[in-house]
Amino acid sequence: MRNIRLVLSFDGTAFHGWQIQPGARTVQGTLCEAIRQVSGHAATVVGSGRTDAGVHARAQVANFHTDSRMQPAQFLRALNSRLPPDVRVLSAATAAPGFHARRDARSKVYRYQIYRSEVLPPHLSREHFHYPYPIDLEPMKHACDLFVGEHDFASFAAKSGRLDGMSERNTVREIFASELKSSGRRLLFTFEGSGFLHHMVRNMVGTLLEIGRGRLGTDRFLRLFAQRDRTLAGFTAPAHGLILVRVKYRRVPPEKAVPET
Amino acid sequence: MRNIRLVLSFDGTAFHGWQIQPGARTVQGTLCEAIRQVSGHAATVVGSGRTDAGVHARAQVANFHTDSRMQPAQFLRALNSRLPPDVRVLSAATAAPGFHARRDARSKVYRYQIYRSEVLPPHLSREHFHYPYPIDLEPMKHACDLFVGEHDFASFAAKSGRLDGMSERNTVREIFASELKSSGRRLLFTFEGSGFLHHMVRNMVGTLLEIGRGRLGTDRFLRLFAQRDRTLAGFTAPAHGLILVRVKYRRVPPEKAVPET
Repeated sequence: MRNIRLVLSFDGTAFHGWQIQPGARTVQGTLCEAIRQVSGHAATVVGSGRTDAGVHARAQVANFHTDSRMQPAQFLRALNSRLPPDVRVLSAATAAPGFHARRDARSKVYRYQIYRSEVLPPHLSREHFHYPYPIDLEPMKHACDLFVGEHDFASFAAKSGRLDGMSERNTVREIFASELKSSGRRLLFTFEGSGFLHHMVRNMVGTLLEIGRGRLGTDRFLRLFAQRDRTLAGFTAPAHGLILVRVKYRRVPPEKAVPET
Repeated sequence: MRNIRLVLSFDGTAFHGWQIQPGARTVQGTLCEAIRQVSGHAATVVGSGRTDAGVHARAQVANFHTDSRMQPAQFLRALNSRLPPDVRVLSAATAAPGFHARRDARSKVYRYQIYRSEVLPPHLSREHFHYPYPIDLEPMKHACDLFVGEHDFASFAAKSGRLDGMSERNTVREIFASELKSSGRRLLFTFEGSGFLHHMVRNMVGTLLEIGRGRLGTDRFLRLFAQRDRTLAGFTAPAHGLILVRVKYRRVPPEKAVPET
């Protein structure tokens, strides 16, 4: 059995999220079906984590085991010819036998995109949250910096409690980088972390927007980490502004790396 | 009667082009209907020119006359609340009584977008032509420069002969700027001209691609202008890579300008 590692890009608009579900069009389900058609056998596809309905990905990482003798480059072409245009395999490679896309992920990078002008141009509407209200960027940038480090993010978790691939009880996560950039009429948030709770990025963004509007001060913001109460943080920003841009893995030592063919 | 000037942005994917047609979803038809709902009267909407089915616009310019007392800013909001999300009014202003969006246009700027890698990421698929073949950029750039100036573009006109707002017989147009930029895996063509024949930009791009693939040399390319034969130039590049990015007008002298409200 070979272990194939895929990098995937998808437009989340018409998907009911990543995770396979009976009767719903999901990225994992669509991919499993394409692999079955191409390889002739059912396969379990492991993703680096789930994404919600409407969330996009530039480079989701997944892996599956196969006894097919197809080369990765052939898998890439064959899968793309069967997949719908809103999901593409950007690269395929043979991975070490033990590689696991979720357990081995060291960090994930998410971007959240906001467009601030009164009118949202149609070409930006799929991947930007339209937020045409006056906001003060300085306190938002200050609060954005305060996310960096290891914190209990219970106040930023979805009420449902479903989490992203880790124990449901443990709501501590480490944020390695947290940045807010203003670029013309766009606001771009970038968060890199060890992992993210369900809805965590969207709740962080909603909270920063409340700070920008003057509805939440820095003191109350800082208390959120200790309070562990979802009802005190900001609203959940909509899914369509969120993009999984990268998943990072431990570098495999060169002698153990399997050459990409 | 006041003359209202609109700047419009639209995603051409789901439109059957600009021009109003019975039974087809067109940008002009959709806009006319919204103006009728907002102003209470039918209006003739003049666009700077037609765009084909699938072609996008960042800033199409249009005008219409109305006896409504609504201010332009109110028109902007009311129209956007009635228009579907794939067409937006970016700005609205009162124009001089004689302003005519088509006759007064001095130049139009079109961009054509190509993506060259083997796999086209979904977020680029609406506005990029996927062209994953090896091409030589230098002769393309050289030929691209040769479009500048006044030429007979009959070899680059659609066979149908329908033209863009000018006499069907006159196929002479002036190109003010013609540029090809390579940006990562993208190729971006920008053409500014006094006007463009039907399919002209798409035929210019198809011809440049044939040059890039070594199927058409500079000598044969230069002869195309004199030959006036559509069958000798390159293929018609698909509509979805084409974007009308700007329409330029004569500057109105300050004392005659009507302030935008």
